[in-house]
Amino acid sequence: MKIHKRLIILMKQFNFLPKLFNSWKDEYQEDVRYGLKGRTLIEKKSKFQKITVFESKRYGKALLLDDCWMTAEKQEKQYHECLVHPALCSSEELNNILIIGGGDGGTARECLKYKELKKLKLIEIDELVIEMSKRYLSEIGCNCWLDPRLDVQSEDGISWVQKAEENSFDAIIIDGSDPKGPAKGLFNKKFFQNCRRILKSNGVFAAQTESPEAFEKTHIESVKVIREVFGKADPLYGNVPIYPSGWWSWTFASIGKRRYLYPINSRAEQISKTCQFWSPRWQKGSFDSIPAHIERKLKS
Amino acid sequence: MKIHKRLIILMKQFNFLPKLFNSWKDEYQEDVRYGLKGRTLIEKKSKFQKITVFESKRYGKALLLDDCWMTAEKQEKQYHECLVHPALCSSEELNNILIIGGGDGGTARECLKYKELKKLKLIEIDELVIEMSKRYLSEIGCNCWLDPRLDVQSEDGISWVQKAEENSFDAIIIDGSDPKGPAKGLFNKKFFQNCRRILKSNGVFAAQTESPEAFEKTHIESVKVIREVFGKADPLYGNVPIYPSGWWSWTFASIGKRRYLYPINSRAEQISKTCQFWSPRWQKGSFDSIPAHIERKLKS
Repeated sequence: MKIHKRLIILMKQFNFLPKLFNSWKDEYQEDVRYGLKGRTLIEKKSKFQKITVFESKRYGKALLLDDCWMTAEKQEKQYHECLVHPALCSSEELNNILIIGGGDGGTARECLKYKELKKLKLIEIDELVIEMSKRYLSEIGCNCWLDPRLDVQSEDGISWVQKAEENSFDAIIIDGSDPKGPAKGLFNKKFFQNCRRILKSNGVFAAQTESPEAFEKTHIESVKVIREVFGKADPLYGNVPIYPSGWWSWTFASIGKRRYLYPINSRAEQISKTCQFWSPRWQKGSFDSIPAHIERKLKS
Repeated sequence: MKIHKRLIILMKQFNFLPKLFNSWKDEYQEDVRYGLKGRTLIEKKSKFQKITVFESKRYGKALLLDDCWMTAEKQEKQYHECLVHPALCSSEELNNILIIGGGDGGTARECLKYKELKKLKLIEIDELVIEMSKRYLSEIGCNCWLDPRLDVQSEDGISWVQKAEENSFDAIIIDGSDPKGPAKGLFNKKFFQNCRRILKSNGVFAAQTESPEAFEKTHIESVKVIREVFGKADPLYGNVPIYPSGWWSWTFASIGKRRYLYPINSRAEQISKTCQFWSPRWQKGSFDSIPAHIERKLKS
């Protein structure tokens, strides 16, 4: 056997080839797969999950948790802009903001665009996600990690909100992964009740609420329970091509009136210039573009 | 060698295995792939393209042209409803409607829901697409092929519109594939000029205009040229998970005023009950949910 063939076999045995050559990395969901070509840069196991950084040819460096696409350098703005701005443009004040999850830093980066924001707390369960994001995905978090207004804690968000002081946050943003593994408890009533308890009455709550296509049942249940807990809540629909089906939703809630529907002009003007996807017009449209069958199911 | 191993090798040689066992069928686009699990039912070559019918586990029977997903039984309503109803709900009359492409029958099926529609002409370049759709994808076309109002012709739509009589159609719907192979000419100015010539002044033009993400350049150019030719034109954004990036667009145009923005109430009420995705609210939202960067590029 020639020496180079021996070498390739040896590299295959030690799972070294994917790091050198481009190959396909796929996320599998119920007999559908979505894959990007590229190479794995690093893969580690934390206490909670498998964390992979993959360099894709199309979308730059990407993060996977337990083999599911989470974010990618050239494929993240539509997710982070859509989650943050409907909430932060409409909350009456921006003194004290909370992010649960969001270890890649994209949500924090969007929040910190607001000059009037005073304090931002980020509670991410998995320290290693933050560490690897800082090191490999610096284009996503950018300078957020250095901003003195940001306070990062590695803790379980579910138990953290239980202990937090009531009526203390102007906006609460849930930026977790799918409801399995460490993010499972981010989709239940008790968690949302605690979020409501610690949200100020003129504040806004925001959460990613899965795909209306790939995870229809979870999506509908989440919207219904958030609506039940807060009184007012509405889903907003958009696109994240690397997520299952590409069709995604975020749900916004507030107490008393649906303030998340109405961005404050001065803030919207300031933020619009910096956004690739979000605009007040886009936001209005995305709240309205609810598929007819989902609208019927949410009413029933 | 055991007899069953010999048999498998033989079957592989004659490309017979995929028809018996489930495997992945992927569409590849610029280092991204989207695949469904299932088995190929039949694959034929026509004068124009390779036509595949694939039985997917997730979305039922699906059609591919030259290895690109075109439609699937449980994944087609968002495409066909979004293409047809903004046009047919707003054109002043529905006496004479034209479809270019649409050989799977889904667009015709949606058009024929309108009782006041009198004549529907479908010009599909590839006879074999119609034949195979009738045989294998009967859940998509349903009974449209038997409706006496439908007149099907296998002809090149591009040269057909050149010869058609001016001012003769109440709505023209372009339901073609991506701008390569037989559908290439469906995206150029001369073709759109002929469409305008044969459209009545109170009619509406509709075309699928590709993905604002996966085919951004083609999308923007198409909207710009349609706007230039008709005077008034606007893109509408939605989701077709089996298409590249899942994020799709349709562009509507009319002469004089943007009538496609205003569905006629009586028709909308009649149609809404039959739709899974389309509703007047959804339509309004989908015209507004234009990504900020696309809006800027369309203005420049």
